[in-house]
Amino acid sequence: MPELRKDPISERWVVIATERGKRPTDFSSVPVSEESKGSKGCPFDEGNEAKTPPEIAAWREADTSPNTPGWDVRVVNNLFPALVNQGEVNRTGMGVYDMMSGIGAHEVIIETPQHDLCIPDMPDEQVEKILWAYKQRILEISKDQRFRYVLVFKNYGKTAGASLAHPHSQLIATPITPRYVKLELSNSRAYFLEKERCIFCDIIRQELGSGERIVYENEYFVAFTPFASRFPFEVWLLPRRHEHGFEIMPDQERILLARCLKDILKRLKIALNDPPFNYVLHTCPNQVARAGKPAYWGTIQYDFHWHIEIIPRLTKMAGFEWGSGLYINPTSPEQAAKFLREVKV
Amino acid sequence: MPELRKDPISERWVVIATERGKRPTDFSSVPVSEESKGSKGCPFDEGNEAKTPPEIAAWREADTSPNTPGWDVRVVNNLFPALVNQGEVNRTGMGVYDMMSGIGAHEVIIETPQHDLCIPDMPDEQVEKILWAYKQRILEISKDQRFRYVLVFKNYGKTAGASLAHPHSQLIATPITPRYVKLELSNSRAYFLEKERCIFCDIIRQELGSGERIVYENEYFVAFTPFASRFPFEVWLLPRRHEHGFEIMPDQERILLARCLKDILKRLKIALNDPPFNYVLHTCPNQVARAGKPAYWGTIQYDFHWHIEIIPRLTKMAGFEWGSGLYINPTSPEQAAKFLREVKV
Repeated sequence: MPELRKDPISERWVVIATERGKRPTDFSSVPVSEESKGSKGCPFDEGNEAKTPPEIAAWREADTSPNTPGWDVRVVNNLFPALVNQGEVNRTGMGVYDMMSGIGAHEVIIETPQHDLCIPDMPDEQVEKILWAYKQRILEISKDQRFRYVLVFKNYGKTAGASLAHPHSQLIATPITPRYVKLELSNSRAYFLEKERCIFCDIIRQELGSGERIVYENEYFVAFTPFASRFPFEVWLLPRRHEHGFEIMPDQERILLARCLKDILKRLKIALNDPPFNYVLHTCPNQVARAGKPAYWGTIQYDFHWHIEIIPRLTKMAGFEWGSGLYINPTSPEQAAKFLREVKV
Repeated sequence: MPELRKDPISERWVVIATERGKRPTDFSSVPVSEESKGSKGCPFDEGNEAKTPPEIAAWREADTSPNTPGWDVRVVNNLFPALVNQGEVNRTGMGVYDMMSGIGAHEVIIETPQHDLCIPDMPDEQVEKILWAYKQRILEISKDQRFRYVLVFKNYGKTAGASLAHPHSQLIATPITPRYVKLELSNSRAYFLEKERCIFCDIIRQELGSGERIVYENEYFVAFTPFASRFPFEVWLLPRRHEHGFEIMPDQERILLARCLKDILKRLKIALNDPPFNYVLHTCPNQVARAGKPAYWGTIQYDFHWHIEIIPRLTKMAGFEWGSGLYINPTSPEQAAKFLREVKV
């Protein structure tokens, strides 16, 4: 019998179609590492710094200059930005419609100078430097009062939307808080107002208690397949302790997050034969206090709990999902967690 | 300069990235008609009726029996249903989580006995019979008090999630109203309560007034690319006159809807080289009046306005879209409408 399950954070229902019970080997696809060989002319390779827009930030050796070799992680503007950084946020109405100018930031975080070194195979310290870059950019961009949110995400493999093979993440800053984040914010606030507890903390407690969906845990972080997973082998990664913003994470915790992220991506790579995936970081919105704005605007939402959502791209969205917002997941989260736990890392 | 636009019905923002300005020929893909040749053993072909689950409904010649040749449109259960029809809707809680049994209906509407005759090439009367089948099944299923909603949809091409090439649509009945529909219902109700006008009617009036996004119109129906299109060449099709439910459409209007739907699909086929697509029918929820339920439950939502959303599958969802719910559309709806209007049908 299939089950309908509801995610308490987004209030999204999903169908867990257990009859179909798909195992890792039922999802066949070309391993992402085989999609493109050779790095000839790759603008993200060390030595090709002049081929990208100018460097915005980098983790570099002490005596090296921007836009030259000697870096471990490098951040540049996206050459084909979805939103542009110049101008003011003009809001206009046109009859029943609302619009605003497409102001934003769109940056690329080049995760390593090596063309084919992916997170699962990096030293932990390299993954830590990527996370450091995320933090630096969120903190820096959030000073710009035009932007309400900075979304960090990664597309791995063509199916997941990546156009370049060299390991990279991206971020897009927007003049609005994106609606999925807004939904999580408003539901976690409503829960907090009712119970004076964080909904994410309650979920973590319940998951650690039952253990059946846990994939990995260390002193500060935990990763599990969510109860109402939309996709087969979806994994969420959260700080065990309540923390509303990724960017305010104490520095000494970052290495533990790096280990957790690397571990999960390695398990997915082994279990699912190097599948395409996306991950997104949901942190609280930018903390802006602007004169003349209502008091609630820009206040810190302490009742939020930041997390990373990892989505392997194994199934296709079809008309039903597009039309309903209700996902059909052919692998139960309990089975998925078991498969991932059993992987030898 | 890109634009952020808001859809007033779903309150969804999209980025119209006009710089990228993609034209129809920029989206290259294999025409769906070339995906699979030959119909050997197709369970949906005339003469193979025994290969499908038993017939639920059909448009048939007068003297023919169910599950034999002689039909124009045929409805059967899906052989691999996402939800099952037996049992009661049991609701349970598990700590912070909610779940219910996966009760539902999952049917296939076989659109023609001919293996490779798609809607754009059918006689208008055949398309009308498909629409008749949608109506019959919605009316029939909505008598079942376990189901709150019947979603009719079509997957065309593998990229759009179709597993069989023979022209067919599907429907899934669910014990909940899907959240995208719920969002449209609640926003159209809020608009009506404020203005005593239907938001869809206001949009239709504005679109017909400006004309820049109109693709097709006849006496009863209109099709346009929505102002905040999520996808390149997305098209919506609506009755011009206010009508809350597809299934209560007067019979004499059905042929005009058939012509409108066929025209749009033909334009998309020609302009975009037979692309994969999905369409979904959004009608009002089932009209159930059950004893012991609160008064508002199951009342007819007269302020809704049914419509069909057609989505060509030309771009990929990437991490940003998954994480934000904000879509980046590289073709402006105005350009898309112009291209589609100029197609010689």
